[in-house]
Amino acid sequence: MASSVRSQFQQSISLPALRAYLAEFISTFFFVFAAVGSAISARMLTPDVTSEASSLVATAVAQGFALFAAVYIASDASGGHVNPAVTFGLAVAGHVSVPTAIFYWISQLVGATLACLVLRVASAGQAVPTTGIATQMTGFGGAILEGVTTFALVYTVYVASDQRGSGLRGGSAVGPLAVGMVAGACVLATGSLTGGSMNPARSFGPAVVSGDFKNQGVYWVGPLIGAALAALVHQNLVYPPLSSASDSRHGEAMVV
Amino acid sequence: MASSVRSQFQQSISLPALRAYLAEFISTFFFVFAAVGSAISARMLTPDVTSEASSLVATAVAQGFALFAAVYIASDASGGHVNPAVTFGLAVAGHVSVPTAIFYWISQLVGATLACLVLRVASAGQAVPTTGIATQMTGFGGAILEGVTTFALVYTVYVASDQRGSGLRGGSAVGPLAVGMVAGACVLATGSLTGGSMNPARSFGPAVVSGDFKNQGVYWVGPLIGAALAALVHQNLVYPPLSSASDSRHGEAMVV
Amino acid sequence: MASSVRSQFQQSISLPALRAYLAEFISTFFFVFAAVGSAISARMLTPDVTSEASSLVATAVAQGFALFAAVYIASDASGGHVNPAVTFGLAVAGHVSVPTAIFYWISQLVGATLACLVLRVASAGQAVPTTGIATQMTGFGGAILEGVTTFALVYTVYVASDQRGSGLRGGSAVGPLAVGMVAGACVLATGSLTGGSMNPARSFGPAVVSGDFKNQGVYWVGPLIGAALAALVHQNLVYPPLSSASDSRHGEAMVV
Amino acid sequence: MASSVRSQFQQSISLPALRAYLAEFISTFFFVFAAVGSAISARMLTPDVTSEASSLVATAVAQGFALFAAVYIASDASGGHVNPAVTFGLAVAGHVSVPTAIFYWISQLVGATLACLVLRVASAGQAVPTTGIATQMTGFGGAILEGVTTFALVYTVYVASDQRGSGLRGGSAVGPLAVGMVAGACVLATGSLTGGSMNPARSFGPAVVSGDFKNQGVYWVGPLIGAALAALVHQNLVYPPLSSASDSRHGEAMVV
Repeated sequence: MASSVRSQFQQSISLPALRAYLAEFISTFFFVFAAVGSAISARMLTPDVTSEASSLVATAVAQGFALFAAVYIASDASGGHVNPAVTFGLAVAGHVSVPTAIFYWISQLVGATLACLVLRVASAGQAVPTTGIATQMTGFGGAILEGVTTFALVYTVYVASDQRGSGLRGGSAVGPLAVGMVAGACVLATGSLTGGSMNPARSFGPAVVSGDFKNQGVYWVGPLIGAALAALVHQNLVYPPLSSASDSRHGEAMVV
Repeated sequence: MASSVRSQFQQSISLPALRAYLAEFISTFFFVFAAVGSAISARMLTPDVTSEASSLVATAVAQGFALFAAVYIASDASGGHVNPAVTFGLAVAGHVSVPTAIFYWISQLVGATLACLVLRVASAGQAVPTTGIATQMTGFGGAILEGVTTFALVYTVYVASDQRGSGLRGGSAVGPLAVGMVAGACVLATGSLTGGSMNPARSFGPAVVSGDFKNQGVYWVGPLIGAALAALVHQNLVYPPLSSASDSRHGEAMVV
Repeated sequence: MASSVRSQFQQSISLPALRAYLAEFISTFFFVFAAVGSAISARMLTPDVTSEASSLVATAVAQGFALFAAVYIASDASGGHVNPAVTFGLAVAGHVSVPTAIFYWISQLVGATLACLVLRVASAGQAVPTTGIATQMTGFGGAILEGVTTFALVYTVYVASDQRGSGLRGGSAVGPLAVGMVAGACVLATGSLTGGSMNPARSFGPAVVSGDFKNQGVYWVGPLIGAALAALVHQNLVYPPLSSASDSRHGEAMVV
Repeated sequence: MASSVRSQFQQSISLPALRAYLAEFISTFFFVFAAVGSAISARMLTPDVTSEASSLVATAVAQGFALFAAVYIASDASGGHVNPAVTFGLAVAGHVSVPTAIFYWISQLVGATLACLVLRVASAGQAVPTTGIATQMTGFGGAILEGVTTFALVYTVYVASDQRGSGLRGGSAVGPLAVGMVAGACVLATGSLTGGSMNPARSFGPAVVSGDFKNQGVYWVGPLIGAALAALVHQNLVYPPLSSASDSRHGEAMVV
């Protein structure tokens, strides 16, 4: 048992593992840069940001496109999580070891924070917008919406990582695209309600740089529970492993 | 004959079939969540919703992206119908048995209704917008537009499910994407006229939760007729089966 | 020579050819329905259509998504032209016989006109918007812009139809998507200048139904010349046939 | 050494090389036409361009779609750079020889300039908008943002060109699409800050035609440094070559 933990830890600091952390850092940096930058750019064009549906379109499209690319460029190195909730879901389902998951989280949170810092410094002090909850809503309601949308996101990550399919889905060629488009659709659906985060790192970075941690818990509790449920429903109910062989193949595509 | 019905019914409650219903429930829940949520989020940014084309873009892009992902994540388990009209079209053409189609409908309608319920409860009482017909139009005109757009949608589902092609279409790799983009284009085309539903479940869920069933019939008659015509035109006129072998292969990709 | 024309004509009324015409009719109907319908839906939300960039986004995205799907669903039956200029370009380069091209044109023009008729009748008399040229521009300038954008469109059709590639392009899996996205980008680029047609059928249908043929010539001369140039540049300068074998393979993917 | 330079130069004027330059010319012409044209078309609909987020969406979507197609149509002939910064990154990493890179740059800059010229002439004198920096920002801040976004773009080009992957990424089928979507996301992120260029040719063309070279240096220094860093990080840190064999295969996909 102890030796298993040690072996897991040693694997988590191997050369491929370090590459995976760098890949997660780069992809999360870029994704959060696009998410927060698009909110800044849209706000600069519409000072009264609460009265423009095109701001919602701008930031949703930015996140959909950016997440597709972020997953795509990291997938061969790290599996393309780009999101602590995705890593958590994979860890709950046993596809990622705990030490590796911890290093993934660190890479993602540092990447997200640096992206916000670069945006604030380079833009000469534009305020970094945080994800927030509509005034009339409760934190519990916000967590439910974040949980539901993260369920959809992580479930899609699981399907995209599953190499078995050959029917209408057409294998995994468009998998990262499906992941990005789910995120874009969910930002459009919940953008005015919770900000459409589905990603603790995407909410953590702006909170650190702006110093505003209001309702931060909502963006951790909702997504982490949603991600864990998605992992369990995917592999126990809808797409159970066919055999140990196919299961390990499934695993290889996602674990470091 | 009677034994055939019994055998069909037994197949429709087998383990793979139950998985298919769960997959339809999840995908339809998510698609309707995105469709209705994006209308709510856009409306919160533009109180006077009738004066903003960007609201139309928001909800059309949300539905296009979400339907792509919803079809993608369900396709290996259930064929990815996500729409009672698609199931109806496949049943008319003989690709899905009647008992199975009934269970698909139930899964889709329950998923759609729950999605609207979650949105209303979690958002602390935002009104759930229903699909409606422009004031100057007749229900008959609305049914025609819904029928034409559903024809395009179901015809695309058929082409995407057909494994034969290898030309410009590039096989089925982008099939679910084509299905999603057709839906997005049709919402843009008819959004101000009929709300761009093409999907009885997408209109039924908001009607149940809001208690407003006005013109509900339009969103069943138009799509069901359009879907049946699409199925018949596809397989009898434009892409007739090459042989019984290829036909059954076609069938396998879509039926439970 | 005479027998060759007769043989071409007989091929052009064979069963696969009739299927191809039906496929062109369906796809062009749907594409023009989405192009014109989205302009109507956006205009209904913004009465003063000249003051809203989101109307431009709405109609460009509708055309991009719809053309992708229209090419996708027709490609195995007809090559997915959906545009008289594409058919003309392929005829100039010898990939489609003249009798076949004529039947393609008829199918496309009838489909486009019927789509506009259905929209006007079902919407209870919404005016059908035609493509037009910005007031300060000349018809010659409009034809140049339409020619340049159609060049890009038809050149992309050629590349997408070429089965040889295996590099970064990734074969033809995303070919129809590239065709649709080129069209969307070009509508965004020239939407306020010429309406972004690139397609005589897309301009002809609204002209017939509205009775307004002003500048109709611009939408034929520009696209036809642009398409012919694209065909010649593609196959003579940038991607010359490797051998007669690969050329015929190229041809098979596109000709009836 | 001298003979090596001579041999490189002779390769750079071979027939395939000339085809590559023509392909770069066509693709860069089209991309810049879409980028600048969409800014003109959006501005014509919203005279006060600084107050509309939908203008940002219009030009970002145009560039995302257009770059996807521009890379797609050129990739088999030239590797689909469509951007002097991409060519620079590949030259720094040794995948393109210096003489070839120079001819690529010339083709790209001439294509970009001609596209702006055609737009100005055909539109009867619409002013060609240049990329500019938000008033409160410094040129250094602008260069950092352009460098960061170009890093993301060129890194994605490298991943898309790498034929090794077979995991979640699904090979290179959607590579050009990922390149286009990265660009779209970055325009949304930095559009109001720097104009979101990431491409010296895209900034150079409008500057020549409008005669306004203000801050032109920002759009060369930032992108070139970002591109070089992306090339080095990709091939030395995250995805090091497995062997000389796979390296040369990697090279072949991109070099002339």
